[in-house]
Amino acid sequence: MQIGMIGLGKMGGNMAERLRRGGHEVVGYDRDPSVSDVGSLQELVERLEAPRAVWVMVPAGAPTRSTVEQLRDVLADGDIVIDGGNSYYLDDQRHAADLRTHGIGFVDVGVSGGVWGLEYGYALMTGGEEEHVRRLMPIFETLKPEGEDGFVHAGSVGAGHFAKMVHNGIEYGMMQAFAEGWELLEASDAVTNIPDTFKSWRHGTVIRSWLLDLLVRALEEDPDLTELKGYAEDSGEGRWTVQAAVDHAVPLPAITAALYARFASRQADSPAMKMVAALRNQFGGHAVASSEGQTGKGADAPGADVTPPVEAEG
Amino acid sequence: MQIGMIGLGKMGGNMAERLRRGGHEVVGYDRDPSVSDVGSLQELVERLEAPRAVWVMVPAGAPTRSTVEQLRDVLADGDIVIDGGNSYYLDDQRHAADLRTHGIGFVDVGVSGGVWGLEYGYALMTGGEEEHVRRLMPIFETLKPEGEDGFVHAGSVGAGHFAKMVHNGIEYGMMQAFAEGWELLEASDAVTNIPDTFKSWRHGTVIRSWLLDLLVRALEEDPDLTELKGYAEDSGEGRWTVQAAVDHAVPLPAITAALYARFASRQADSPAMKMVAALRNQFGGHAVASSEGQTGKGADAPGADVTPPVEAEG
Amino acid sequence: MQIGMIGLGKMGGNMAERLRRGGHEVVGYDRDPSVSDVGSLQELVERLEAPRAVWVMVPAGAPTRSTVEQLRDVLADGDIVIDGGNSYYLDDQRHAADLRTHGIGFVDVGVSGGVWGLEYGYALMTGGEEEHVRRLMPIFETLKPEGEDGFVHAGSVGAGHFAKMVHNGIEYGMMQAFAEGWELLEASDAVTNIPDTFKSWRHGTVIRSWLLDLLVRALEEDPDLTELKGYAEDSGEGRWTVQAAVDHAVPLPAITAALYARFASRQADSPAMKMVAALRNQFGGHAVASSEGQTGKGADAPGADVTPPVEAEG
Amino acid sequence: MQIGMIGLGKMGGNMAERLRRGGHEVVGYDRDPSVSDVGSLQELVERLEAPRAVWVMVPAGAPTRSTVEQLRDVLADGDIVIDGGNSYYLDDQRHAADLRTHGIGFVDVGVSGGVWGLEYGYALMTGGEEEHVRRLMPIFETLKPEGEDGFVHAGSVGAGHFAKMVHNGIEYGMMQAFAEGWELLEASDAVTNIPDTFKSWRHGTVIRSWLLDLLVRALEEDPDLTELKGYAEDSGEGRWTVQAAVDHAVPLPAITAALYARFASRQADSPAMKMVAALRNQFGGHAVASSEGQTGKGADAPGADVTPPVEAEG
Repeated sequence: MQIGMIGLGKMGGNMAERLRRGGHEVVGYDRDPSVSDVGSLQELVERLEAPRAVWVMVPAGAPTRSTVEQLRDVLADGDIVIDGGNSYYLDDQRHAADLRTHGIGFVDVGVSGGVWGLEYGYALMTGGEEEHVRRLMPIFETLKPEGEDGFVHAGSVGAGHFAKMVHNGIEYGMMQAFAEGWELLEASDAVTNIPDTFKSWRHGTVIRSWLLDLLVRALEEDPDLTELKGYAEDSGEGRWTVQAAVDHAVPLPAITAALYARFASRQADSPAMKMVAALRNQFGGHAVASSEGQTGKGADAPGADVTPPVEAEG
Repeated sequence: MQIGMIGLGKMGGNMAERLRRGGHEVVGYDRDPSVSDVGSLQELVERLEAPRAVWVMVPAGAPTRSTVEQLRDVLADGDIVIDGGNSYYLDDQRHAADLRTHGIGFVDVGVSGGVWGLEYGYALMTGGEEEHVRRLMPIFETLKPEGEDGFVHAGSVGAGHFAKMVHNGIEYGMMQAFAEGWELLEASDAVTNIPDTFKSWRHGTVIRSWLLDLLVRALEEDPDLTELKGYAEDSGEGRWTVQAAVDHAVPLPAITAALYARFASRQADSPAMKMVAALRNQFGGHAVASSEGQTGKGADAPGADVTPPVEAEG
Repeated sequence: MQIGMIGLGKMGGNMAERLRRGGHEVVGYDRDPSVSDVGSLQELVERLEAPRAVWVMVPAGAPTRSTVEQLRDVLADGDIVIDGGNSYYLDDQRHAADLRTHGIGFVDVGVSGGVWGLEYGYALMTGGEEEHVRRLMPIFETLKPEGEDGFVHAGSVGAGHFAKMVHNGIEYGMMQAFAEGWELLEASDAVTNIPDTFKSWRHGTVIRSWLLDLLVRALEEDPDLTELKGYAEDSGEGRWTVQAAVDHAVPLPAITAALYARFASRQADSPAMKMVAALRNQFGGHAVASSEGQTGKGADAPGADVTPPVEAEG
Repeated sequence: MQIGMIGLGKMGGNMAERLRRGGHEVVGYDRDPSVSDVGSLQELVERLEAPRAVWVMVPAGAPTRSTVEQLRDVLADGDIVIDGGNSYYLDDQRHAADLRTHGIGFVDVGVSGGVWGLEYGYALMTGGEEEHVRRLMPIFETLKPEGEDGFVHAGSVGAGHFAKMVHNGIEYGMMQAFAEGWELLEASDAVTNIPDTFKSWRHGTVIRSWLLDLLVRALEEDPDLTELKGYAEDSGEGRWTVQAAVDHAVPLPAITAALYARFASRQADSPAMKMVAALRNQFGGHAVASSEGQTGKGADAPGADVTPPVEAEG
């Protein structure tokens, strides 16, 4: 079928390519004229026959918001907008309501697969009305991996991005679990053959997974990860997962631990730990300084346990 | 080659069977005479030609300890004992030292694979001296899954069980991550098609894994898990992972969260939360009781924020 | 000075009383006519001389929002509205902006002290313009505890409630720390004199605090807390603290743990733990069922470690 | 009464001083001859009349162990050894059993109070037999703060150090709660008057405590803690608290979070976060490198959400 694709970066560009290979007609628009098929959104719309389907594949937040607003003004009753970015699910509901006033449909799609997707297909989680999803099925069938899994109509508008959000939350927790296990192995000297140990786990174990495959690849390239900094960004989706959990009174300790570990990894120095250090200093030092003219730690200070202030023959 | 197998339960029995299918000669001993090839450990030893290999597959702790001690007294210089149970890695070092005084070798093996292992093979993590492991390779080759992975010589004595311990720690964290994601989806009404959403993730996503496959199977049988209690045992290995991390000053927040969630799942009522409830009562109740002849919560109590003590037209 | 007080429940009523004892003239309004001085907000406004100060002490959320809107319509340029409830700090900014269009000032006040406040005073955290806070100082001086602490002008509009929110977050963490310590003492049999142990900590220790005093009182009344359920509500402020932390990429593990423990305490059965139980069942059961006509757990299941499926003399 | 004090460092020396001020006769021994009253343990014993009481105030672990062994050989039936250091409670049980074979009693005492103790008294948690504790009461009465609290006979041998261990665990959690609250206030710009906000909390709030007093002092000296590193040691007691909780299947999420935050504060770079970074790189980089001759992140990488790989007009 015919589709417009807005945003021809690594994701949008590859998806357009996979759709064309699958026999669809894709009209692409990007602000970079060297990759764009048309010069404006207006022209994009004119190149498509009604009822149109336009896939938005631009950054979440302001860029997506602005694109949807522009489409509302140039599309017509019966057209459908698809948001394939990583939008917040509550944004979807606003976008859908806004477009509905002009008779335009809306479907949100959480997309997973990264650079591997062009070849192997993209996992798709969709949200929207049954009728809209049905009309777009030829597109979804081509984008998803071959075989039965890799696609779901998860519910009404917002469900696709909500599902992708939870997927990413789970991903955070799994990555953290592997990372903690690796750190413990590195800290102990019990296992001397760490990369091979992870490699051995790829078959027959409970934890075999794509992430384990990636981990083994990473250790093959750099067995102690000496080239890397312990610094990890986080996406909006990890944060939204935790905030949604708090909204619903759902305890999410492992996923939250994973998110907080990323926050902490980006701090050159932990403010909270400065305060802990300050409190430990207060246990003894200043009181002594002011009242007795000497400094030092009291025995109640945990530090005193490590480098005890008392000495004797013992 | 020839091997003695002590403990012919589900694990030991299946492993003996897989070894026989692979052409090895297995002499099995179990305290249940209906499955045992011999009547005593002494007879087992007599049936094997020196230098012998005896695989112990009995519960960790006292049963393994006692078995190793008995073997020390009936085996001879040059024999090897293999502990394939879920022993604590520091026990291995004690067992190896004890056996070494009699010239008997020791290899510890962490075994993963469960009931699937008979058919698909067992993942094996081994610890011990290079020479001992080399002598046992025909056995390991038959037990492990076909292909290159599924076996590792992880280091010296204890390394096999240490590796298995960390494997199980990672497993705890991964299971918890999936469980939290599922609970959040259930608590929200955003996604109305939860089992199919998990099913769709089996291909093309970052979180595809054997645990996800099992999760999908579980939801196919019972879509809301209504048949199950939220009650989960923990193995020694999860606890040892956390304790080893504390010993090595390694932060393990996600894996520890998973362990604590299991602890909490087994409490009919949380003692800690009784204390939190008691403190919240104290914020206001008694002052009210003494000064106004009634009980109630003060406005400072968090509960007061939810059902506020103040009322007005508003 | 003269002040209107809207909401004469336990908090508002006591505060009005403390203000009167301090020599102020309070005109109170409540939807319960038996405690109200006036019949309507309109009448309240008429009873006060301009420039007026009106303190809103009604539940956060819709009741406060509605009250502020009504006041906007009946108050005049130069008047000030004070919100002393537990409002979300972003609501304050909306309320202030709304009132400003009518020339009406706004000050938010986080109030701590509960039923003890009438006698001992209320801790006050205020947010708003310097001039507005200065005008209200006679009121604040009377409400706060005598002495130098117990009052702060924390910043511009919203700062008072933000400070109170963080105060409550810290409170959650402290309560959880005490509760965990108590549970550990109860679980172990090392300390046989638990209430006296807590009592002894009230002097000379690092953890001496008002919460410890309350804890000791609770144990005096019910030494094992047998009368209580391990069930704890949470206020909006605990949730907002975590969500603000996520917004600012601040790791908050202890406070979040306290919040999640409350969430979990209210679940009759943990959904996440159902999933963990389901996954553990999957490790072995069905393979056995299909291939051997029996059900059971595989040896890889952590549960198998506890009640191992293998048996031998050992 | 008469007592021997071994270890005259800051703690032991101050305690000896407080005991002398209270009218007791103290014979002190330290390996530093300039502060020691006697030249050897043998001489110390000879200077005391039977039945003797000897207080050991040396570092926990090997020094204490060695001192107790030496005392066993020089003391006599009916004497009592007191361990006032921060020993592990299971060590106490070994020491008591060892001494009992010579008819020597043993009492363990957890001591809190630090440099403030000389003036204000030390909080004492004791473990041991009723008769032994009773004999030492004159000593305890002098050491503890005046008034009714500050002393407890917590149970049999080990109970004193177990109680102190839990006290320190609670202390960790409380410090972490304050530290997290402070970090959140610093990260947000809502509250512009942070030191005064903490100061205001010292009266009338739920979180008023000695730790808050210390925190206010710390901020008075250095309002943003710019002089400090976010680096915090931990004592054995924090670790033992977590390990005891794991042994007893008690969930301890907030206290454990506090311990892990200290572990992390001492890592120049987090190994676990290196692995998370490595996994995120694997999502996309290599596939791109191999198939398109460039490197970059796939859209599935969380980082892609923040700095998305797709660009369009939007």
